[in-house]
Amino acid sequence: MSLLVVGSVALDTVKTPFGEADEVLGGSATYFSTAASYFTDVSLVAVVGEDFPEKHVNFLKSRKVDVSGLQRAKGETFRWKGEYGYDLNEARTLDTRLNVFETFKPSIPESYRKADVVFLANIDPVLQREVLSQVDKPKLVACDTMNFWIGGKRDELIKTLALVDILLINESEARELASEPNLVKAARAIQAMGPGTLIVKRGEYGALMFGRDEVFSAPAYPLESVFDPTGAGDSFAGGFMGYLDNLHSFDGRALRQAIVFGSVMASFNVEDFSLNRMKSLDYKEIEDRYREFKRLTFFDDLGQGV
Amino acid sequence: MSLLVVGSVALDTVKTPFGEADEVLGGSATYFSTAASYFTDVSLVAVVGEDFPEKHVNFLKSRKVDVSGLQRAKGETFRWKGEYGYDLNEARTLDTRLNVFETFKPSIPESYRKADVVFLANIDPVLQREVLSQVDKPKLVACDTMNFWIGGKRDELIKTLALVDILLINESEARELASEPNLVKAARAIQAMGPGTLIVKRGEYGALMFGRDEVFSAPAYPLESVFDPTGAGDSFAGGFMGYLDNLHSFDGRALRQAIVFGSVMASFNVEDFSLNRMKSLDYKEIEDRYREFKRLTFFDDLGQGV
Repeated sequence: MSLLVVGSVALDTVKTPFGEADEVLGGSATYFSTAASYFTDVSLVAVVGEDFPEKHVNFLKSRKVDVSGLQRAKGETFRWKGEYGYDLNEARTLDTRLNVFETFKPSIPESYRKADVVFLANIDPVLQREVLSQVDKPKLVACDTMNFWIGGKRDELIKTLALVDILLINESEARELASEPNLVKAARAIQAMGPGTLIVKRGEYGALMFGRDEVFSAPAYPLESVFDPTGAGDSFAGGFMGYLDNLHSFDGRALRQAIVFGSVMASFNVEDFSLNRMKSLDYKEIEDRYREFKRLTFFDDLGQGV
Repeated sequence: MSLLVVGSVALDTVKTPFGEADEVLGGSATYFSTAASYFTDVSLVAVVGEDFPEKHVNFLKSRKVDVSGLQRAKGETFRWKGEYGYDLNEARTLDTRLNVFETFKPSIPESYRKADVVFLANIDPVLQREVLSQVDKPKLVACDTMNFWIGGKRDELIKTLALVDILLINESEARELASEPNLVKAARAIQAMGPGTLIVKRGEYGALMFGRDEVFSAPAYPLESVFDPTGAGDSFAGGFMGYLDNLHSFDGRALRQAIVFGSVMASFNVEDFSLNRMKSLDYKEIEDRYREFKRLTFFDDLGQGV
């Protein structure tokens, strides 16, 4: 049980139709490790600037996240500013300041190198491979990516994909990566690039998993109050990978359960700004919502029940 | 077991990135009754013009659809011409000629008036109520509608909704009808208008059912070749209502199964132009795909399996 994540730690300023949050804790590695911390021990690799509030580091420690791989660099912390409209599906980025993240070189502490499960959050695919060159033989490697790399560093991304077991990707980005409008065909094309398993994130429509010989469809939890979608994808990945690392089984049945746990964590995360909802969770709430997902999707077999 | 549908019978000209079909059989009542005919006996009420090919009537008869309520009026049959882009989600209407449909007055034959289950396809909400005034006491009434009536005949539509048990509606139209961007809140608002059950159709993302105290999420079947989405919603409704009429049970478990059968019929329908795929179906294929939906959505309970 050891889960390594490499990604960003950021300070976000977010505006939604329901409110605003200024300079709050954000970043892919933050959301990921907080969500995963409910299932397993997480080691984080990221960089922050001299201005990064110590209270955020203490929060991660309180979630038992190992932060010995969190570098402090000269300069300011990565900042992102975005806005959502009523449909809440896509953020409009108002400002991105990479700051110390611009020159980030992931350095994996000796104690992390035997990690069994590795998550490469959405960073430069060249850096994603540098991480892999620093770890021993992980049993499972997953990565995320985005249109910025698909468009700008396609060849590097394809080299990275050859080395990973699972790719988590947004629906429109899957179509873009494969240059194929049909999602099933796009998935097959991406699997041929390397990842045996593809998980397509569809926001409020849930997620689809394409395995070697199976497809699994998970819904999103229908929420009456979606407050801030920031970090939903990384919270999903955290619940998903955290559960898998804890279970230490990566077959189809495990992956399906893990996707539901990922969906559970994403559904909590969007209920408030920043990490606020995930901060106050307990494991019983997570299990209760897992059961809600079961009720949400259940129907009788043919000739059964009714 | 008697299912009555009132809607349109049309000649469609459809262009998709994969081909074209000219003056082919279409219309909401056609798709609905063909899909439903695999489950129960269907009685159809609609109007066609003098130019309507007899072979199409013979096709409906071959599916055991009772066409004694199919009026032949002076003039031309309702024609629709539309086009789909690569995303196949929304049709661009190029031409609509209502022709004989413009003055359609549904007249329910005496033999249909004792129908237990009634489906009011997407027609003027005033006509939908005229249908209801001509039938005895159906056990279940469902209706469809569209943005044209939501925007143009809102008060009439709301009067109709007070009389129906189930509303089937597209996602964007649900939001528009309730003037509410959040789908869960929109569903509650629409249920307060009358229909105890709301079924929200989400195209390639499946369907959501909102009952009095439950929500059910059904996926769409991930297809490698979606050829023509025309009629998917009506095929869904046909499979859904056909199964319910046959089962004669309308509780939550029955509704969930019926939604999956509706999804099955929609998934077949989009595989070819017009009714071509549904024409060549057999019931075993329908059951096989139902089982595929089960495999597509199954995951273990907590503490079970893995």
